Amino acid sequence: MAADSESKLQLVHRHIRQFPDFPKKGILFRDICPILKDPAALTAVIDLFEEHARKNYKQVDLVIGLDARGFLFGPLLAQRLGVGFVLVRKKGKLPGATVSVAYDLEYGTAEAEIQEDAVAPGQKVLLIDDLLATGGTLFAACELMRKQQAEVLGCMVIIELKELNGSDKLKPHSVFSLLQY
Amino acid sequence: MAADSESKLQLVHRHIRQFPDFPKKGILFRDICPILKDPAALTAVIDLFEEHARKNYKQVDLVIGLDARGFLFGPLLAQRLGVGFVLVRKKGKLPGATVSVAYDLEYGTAEAEIQEDAVAPGQKVLLIDDLLATGGTLFAACELMRKQQAEVLGCMVIIELKELNGSDKLKPHSVFSLLQY
Repeated sequence: MAADSESKLQLVHRHIRQFPDFPKKGILFRDICPILKDPAALTAVIDLFEEHARKNYKQVDLVIGLDARGFLFGPLLAQRLGVGFVLVRKKGKLPGATVSVAYDLEYGTAEAEIQEDAVAPGQKVLLIDDLLATGGTLFAACELMRKQQAEVLGCMVIIELKELNGSDKLKPHSVFSLLQY
Repeated sequence: MAADSESKLQLVHRHIRQFPDFPKKGILFRDICPILKDPAALTAVIDLFEEHARKNYKQVDLVIGLDARGFLFGPLLAQRLGVGFVLVRKKGKLPGATVSVAYDLEYGTAEAEIQEDAVAPGQKVLLIDDLLATGGTLFAACELMRKQQAEVLGCMVIIELKELNGSDKLKPHSVFSLLQY
């Protein structure tokens, strides 16, 4: 990695806070709010995402962001790449004809949804969220893309929690994470 | 308004779709997803917000965005202005010490929340969301800012539904909306 990228990564790293026992006992929560609070750190995140996208993908047609923290970073990346941004939302939030996929939560299930006309067959898409844990939501988003016959180039996150093996769940799709814990 | 701004506004206007009876009968839903899908339309939104902010406010310290659709536009504006972005979330989503304010929904109430250290006393802030309806959530966000002794410069939205009188509810704070229905 270039020295410049390394220093950007360190800047991002310094802007992640840890909160033990949130949202419940035994969970160490990684808080990305300080990144958004510092314009230079936020710029660094988008620089690193853009660098990865330009280096690895000849063509990106759309950036797809996950409700709600993927909304914070996705439109910034989409603007950098000069492409559109599409929302994956929790069920019931999007008007018009939609496509949805159920995924497991710790207790029960939820559904991820997109507008039916949001992605066209054959479009090359990048999925973005803030954090990869077990990969349930990103997996559902990949399934939505498969249903719409879009081509998932890869998934991008700021933080990957390695011990939860989310990237295994997302195979064969690749995961690009800025920081691994 | 300058011809350039007028054409940007028309571009934004062309990217709003209407869905009758969503999320329930009698509601005409204004869908902003097509704005995000078109990079030029999204750029136009942020251009117009930035132009308004630079023209009207000598100093902006922070952009404050509302969960979840305010997250789509707030970080873009914050980056343009070279300032930080702070999240107002639904209760229970933010780690650490928080401050919250209850607001009325059609049935029952909800709570808007920020991290206690997110905004410092005296900071000048701009609030941003996609749409102003009755103004319940933006009003709660203004209350959060008052609790933190921040100075609300104004509220910015893409769409204002005039007949619901949300801007009256937000007085004395001003509302800047790109489109009025």
